[in-house]
Amino acid sequence: MGCNEQDAALAAKSLLIADLRGVDSHGVARLSGYVRLWEAKRINPAPQINIVHETPSTAVVDGDKGLGLVVAPFAMNVAIDKAKKVGTGWVSVTNSNHFGIAGSHAMMALKHDMIGIAMTNASALVAPTFSTERMLGTNPIAVAIPAGDEQPFVADFATTTAANGKLEMLQRKNQHAPKGWVQTKTGESSTDANELKKGGALLPLGGDKEHGSHKGYALGAIVDIFSAVLSGANYGPWVPPFPAYVPMPENQPGQGIGHFLGAMRIDAFRPKEDFRHHIDKWIRRFKSSKTIAGEDHVIIPGEPETEFENERMKNGIPLLDAVANDLINLGERFSIKLR
Amino acid sequence: MGCNEQDAALAAKSLLIADLRGVDSHGVARLSGYVRLWEAKRINPAPQINIVHETPSTAVVDGDKGLGLVVAPFAMNVAIDKAKKVGTGWVSVTNSNHFGIAGSHAMMALKHDMIGIAMTNASALVAPTFSTERMLGTNPIAVAIPAGDEQPFVADFATTTAANGKLEMLQRKNQHAPKGWVQTKTGESSTDANELKKGGALLPLGGDKEHGSHKGYALGAIVDIFSAVLSGANYGPWVPPFPAYVPMPENQPGQGIGHFLGAMRIDAFRPKEDFRHHIDKWIRRFKSSKTIAGEDHVIIPGEPETEFENERMKNGIPLLDAVANDLINLGERFSIKLR
Repeated sequence: MGCNEQDAALAAKSLLIADLRGVDSHGVARLSGYVRLWEAKRINPAPQINIVHETPSTAVVDGDKGLGLVVAPFAMNVAIDKAKKVGTGWVSVTNSNHFGIAGSHAMMALKHDMIGIAMTNASALVAPTFSTERMLGTNPIAVAIPAGDEQPFVADFATTTAANGKLEMLQRKNQHAPKGWVQTKTGESSTDANELKKGGALLPLGGDKEHGSHKGYALGAIVDIFSAVLSGANYGPWVPPFPAYVPMPENQPGQGIGHFLGAMRIDAFRPKEDFRHHIDKWIRRFKSSKTIAGEDHVIIPGEPETEFENERMKNGIPLLDAVANDLINLGERFSIKLR
Repeated sequence: MGCNEQDAALAAKSLLIADLRGVDSHGVARLSGYVRLWEAKRINPAPQINIVHETPSTAVVDGDKGLGLVVAPFAMNVAIDKAKKVGTGWVSVTNSNHFGIAGSHAMMALKHDMIGIAMTNASALVAPTFSTERMLGTNPIAVAIPAGDEQPFVADFATTTAANGKLEMLQRKNQHAPKGWVQTKTGESSTDANELKKGGALLPLGGDKEHGSHKGYALGAIVDIFSAVLSGANYGPWVPPFPAYVPMPENQPGQGIGHFLGAMRIDAFRPKEDFRHHIDKWIRRFKSSKTIAGEDHVIIPGEPETEFENERMKNGIPLLDAVANDLINLGERFSIKLR
């Protein structure tokens, strides 16, 4: 596509981390989607990524229409550098594209003994509480916290009841969605997994007002504002879509997609050893708390993904035939020899 | 109780902000609860609040067992001062007590053209996904974002499906709770508003796994870790209870309750005028999005509370007789003349 080797490797690494951690929807299966965005001239394969404004603990990064998979690690490194110097670093990103899984960027902080935070806005699929319009993306939040002897705590979740990928799985199996995941075009509760194709919307975490959907809506809104209103990217219904065939929203108020990345040095708060002792104690106490019948133990955020990673590092990443064929076709097209 | 005049005024202001904004459960109705904590020697009315560790953008504050209503504003001012100098400030607080509504502390940042963030842990009432044990408090998160001509965006919410106060209202009315709010002692879904008295637990935002309760659990956990594992306060099931008659958990690993406060200067990211223009546009676009039948408009976080504040600043704060009598009794006891 015209990426330099370093950027290509960085983007590939981001996708592979998703596959390794069992988030197949955001791994190499998406590669052809990024290529289509490049074909539609929505991605600049050779961006000049720049810091356009900064203070000792903050920056705004302009991604120059680059791959989010490359822009977000650049911005996260800026946050980490600032945290090294003044304790924390916070970077809002404008003019970027889809950045893959939020968790992979947040986890960059771990090896520096820092807490990593990553969020991004995304094209609108979610109706705020009381609305029938799609106004927010699934706007994920990731927080990675280093531990001592235990595995790190890595939360990475869409601010909706269920991510769109889960809905797509139900569509393929011709199954109904649980109540609280989607609503119809007019805002009625629905269990039709195809509701989005009919003008419906995903619901914020909580599902409905009675179950706290105004909280999920507020979370998605905070992600949108930190990512885009702080940086100059597009927000709300104006965020560019991932599928290249979906037309761009009109009258966009900003540039591309926005992200927000943060890093906090543990020893900017207390000695690393003390933190490690207590975070391990926290993890062990939660893991060993009493479970409901039929469950083995209480899960620490990131634990299932770490298990996937250990298993797949050993045995490889299983690919659906469709995804494998996609990769072979891309390889042929770009004259890349598969080993 | 022995508070100096300045601290007493600060604490009173925190409580009054809650009442003004319609959060009656966290206003002056709680005053006698704080007095009982002081009687139980769990609150130090004349604390030496100290910064025990700091970097240019971070600090840990030791509340010296003070009222959270006094400790949290101290810590928020530290965060604001740091943000003035290096763009952002982040303060984790140990050895504190209940701090009232999170929103009042987050909102301190607004007049400085900063985004304010406030969170706190609290005594365990919430069962993580798959657990039957109460491991987390309702651990609220507040984010206050300044606007231009529009009212500020102020989200302030418990990381549970419903706050405990809502459950208590149903108990008084002898009504059932919606599904997804509480579970029984053995982790079964329940609609009994009195379930907590029978060993049951509140549920994280999402309610159950199928509706994303692992996300609410992760949010509550992040609040707990930022507030207490970063600072040296108690966490998880060891957080001190608010009611003075509830015994303290045994073998506590830290000191008191923990909070986490943050401030981000808007112009550490982009010029204030640009931000104001776009946040106003954001607010207007969301407010005017299409609604479901029967709803007037889509609500911006903080909007109902601002309406309460405007109305109550004009017409006063209505008090239940029980609360008014409580205040009169406290006034007599401490020889405070009521005007």
